[in-house]
Amino acid sequence: MQTVKPRTMSGFLELLPKEQKVFNSMKEKVESVLRLNGLACLDTPILELSEILLAKAGGETEKQIFRVIKGDTDMTMRFDLTVPLAKYVSLYKNELTFPFRRYQIGKVFRGERPQKGRLREFYQCDADIIGDGELPIEADAEVISILSNIYTALNVDAEILVSNRKVLLGLFEEEGLTGKQNEILALLDKCEKMGKDACFKEVKELAGESAEKIFKIFEMKSLEELKNSGVQNETYKEGVSELEKVLSLLGVMNVKNAKLNLSIIRGLDYYTGTVFEGRLKEFPAISIGGGGRYENLASYFSSSKMPGVGFGMGLTRLFVLLKELGKLEIGGENYSKLAIIPIGDTESFSFNMAAKLRAENVPCEVLYSRSFKARMNAANKMGVPYIIVVGEDEVASGIFGVKNMQTGETVKVKLEEIKGVL
Amino acid sequence: MQTVKPRTMSGFLELLPKEQKVFNSMKEKVESVLRLNGLACLDTPILELSEILLAKAGGETEKQIFRVIKGDTDMTMRFDLTVPLAKYVSLYKNELTFPFRRYQIGKVFRGERPQKGRLREFYQCDADIIGDGELPIEADAEVISILSNIYTALNVDAEILVSNRKVLLGLFEEEGLTGKQNEILALLDKCEKMGKDACFKEVKELAGESAEKIFKIFEMKSLEELKNSGVQNETYKEGVSELEKVLSLLGVMNVKNAKLNLSIIRGLDYYTGTVFEGRLKEFPAISIGGGGRYENLASYFSSSKMPGVGFGMGLTRLFVLLKELGKLEIGGENYSKLAIIPIGDTESFSFNMAAKLRAENVPCEVLYSRSFKARMNAANKMGVPYIIVVGEDEVASGIFGVKNMQTGETVKVKLEEIKGVL
Repeated sequence: MQTVKPRTMSGFLELLPKEQKVFNSMKEKVESVLRLNGLACLDTPILELSEILLAKAGGETEKQIFRVIKGDTDMTMRFDLTVPLAKYVSLYKNELTFPFRRYQIGKVFRGERPQKGRLREFYQCDADIIGDGELPIEADAEVISILSNIYTALNVDAEILVSNRKVLLGLFEEEGLTGKQNEILALLDKCEKMGKDACFKEVKELAGESAEKIFKIFEMKSLEELKNSGVQNETYKEGVSELEKVLSLLGVMNVKNAKLNLSIIRGLDYYTGTVFEGRLKEFPAISIGGGGRYENLASYFSSSKMPGVGFGMGLTRLFVLLKELGKLEIGGENYSKLAIIPIGDTESFSFNMAAKLRAENVPCEVLYSRSFKARMNAANKMGVPYIIVVGEDEVASGIFGVKNMQTGETVKVKLEEIKGVL
Repeated sequence: MQTVKPRTMSGFLELLPKEQKVFNSMKEKVESVLRLNGLACLDTPILELSEILLAKAGGETEKQIFRVIKGDTDMTMRFDLTVPLAKYVSLYKNELTFPFRRYQIGKVFRGERPQKGRLREFYQCDADIIGDGELPIEADAEVISILSNIYTALNVDAEILVSNRKVLLGLFEEEGLTGKQNEILALLDKCEKMGKDACFKEVKELAGESAEKIFKIFEMKSLEELKNSGVQNETYKEGVSELEKVLSLLGVMNVKNAKLNLSIIRGLDYYTGTVFEGRLKEFPAISIGGGGRYENLASYFSSSKMPGVGFGMGLTRLFVLLKELGKLEIGGENYSKLAIIPIGDTESFSFNMAAKLRAENVPCEVLYSRSFKARMNAANKMGVPYIIVVGEDEVASGIFGVKNMQTGETVKVKLEEIKGVL
């Protein structure tokens, strides 16, 4: 028979079992933090009508999607979890409890050109709190605390940089630069990459004499400095006061790794207040999740105003990053704690033993039928932590040797004691 | 602003948070059984090259897919988890341990015409054991045992009907009906729906005098009868002996709900030995999962022979079915066990309390800022099992009333005792 060459497209991650198990564990830790924080879980469709998913999209998004046209139906594979959330809360508004606290972890799809490092299918994790009409500032502290809890659960050494858009926007108001605010913000957003001197020069071209004041405030790292800056503008003061409340609540919630940093901009038009971003301490230029406060989630689907605050985190991207940094501990191929290897006429006994151990919640498997050596090799290759070789003597005596595959040590126990020594 | 009417396509399940939580719990129970049985987890891409996914497909499959064409790349959304598995084991053969035991739970997509009850996006759960060159019959018993364990974990009252294709195929050989075997099997496959008399009549047209013998064996329900049937054909005997071994191992593994039933056919050309199907006891016509033994998983991708045995189970379908039967217990909207409701100047205290409880693994949330009544209503609507109202007196005394929302009962405890009374 003529065969097709098996292959997986670039940008579509496909893991070997050992790595998949590590990824699963990461995803499960994230999910358990989200649940611990009282968030509801959503699982919206991967395929939706293009009219829905592209309701607010511009030309750029349209180019980066996977579109499915079937008969008269024009569909798109979701490219984020935000538009589906906007649709969801608009559609089921009357049945939900507000503020609506939800998370969703799922694959999203980007029709990028295939190139190294660009993911075209990846897991996104979003957490948001959505208000009906209004949403108190406490919610902003909550989502930052959740992100911090996630880093702790993943044992990732990260910092969360927290800012508030109102601070700089208020300053621009006071300086009469409101008309140029987007241009200036775009420059400040790139400041880390451009270098301060180059950035300052360009800001000065737009803001003239105000550039120095802008940079002075832009670089402030404490509430005290912001409060004593002399800026009188109301928007500015509101921003500082929101920052103060958020940072204070983060302290109350024992969040140790969040700190004020006005260099966090996060794009130009979506966020309106709090913005934040997680950074690896070792590689502070790398963002590993972030988000902020937005004025209205669902203006494309509903006339109700629904302000929200939330964050997104690329789980697959974080996994790839941690793998490249050598931070992942790779273990066994499957979830077995124990492989049972029958020799002689003990196969039925071994299958029965496995069933009994599973009933006690011990993940295990029986390695049967091939040569003893082949089965020992399999146990080694799979990385099973413990094995028991069941011979006729063991069955007769009721005493089994549980061998630790790491240390080589064997302990002899009765069947009902096996669970206790794993 | 002009808005787009929010909607979700028919055939694409989208659940409210309370139902989503029940679905999640179902999926997690299934997954934990699969892990307990020592299966590795795979998570292959949702989007693959059409050349790969359609390698073995005929025209019917092509019509029922969602195709994505972007530039020069012709892609398809996966319609099952079997073709991706065939690709996977062919692609990574040298890195896997055989027999390769894997499960995968993920969404699959069928481009069906939208109509009531037809799912176009749904969760499929597959478990398979794949051999390299050969695979012992023990594997057949293992996968049936796993399916049985899943029904037990889900508290679904099901029976697993087990057959072996070799029994009837051997009988056809002996009766000189090999040329008509597919036609006869197709009729027997429909026998339940057609009714026995109509089915017998049609089989008689094809098989003549042999029809009575075929039906006599087709209706046998025990190994004893099959062994004493007088059929001498070797294929038949092999089938009976495989059935005997499988049923015996199922007994050894304490599987109580599997029984011999030759009426399980499961299509015509894929399975070659053991076949089985799970049926709800209350509605025995409804299949809730099934599978069998196949000769060669990956003939389209590899010249290596890889026999396997496994099952598939439509998780979304089972969820919808159990929901329709009123078998689902719907609980709260999110994972909180406790809602903390601050009144007076106790908000910071309450957020701190929540952080402490989460550190002890108690899922909880703070309901803040609205009227007391609005927050009590929210707690009720969300279905949180316990609440604590934190007033200034509670903070001063260090004693908190934990109210059970089901019984209305309140117990008064210290902060560090809260976890113990939930």
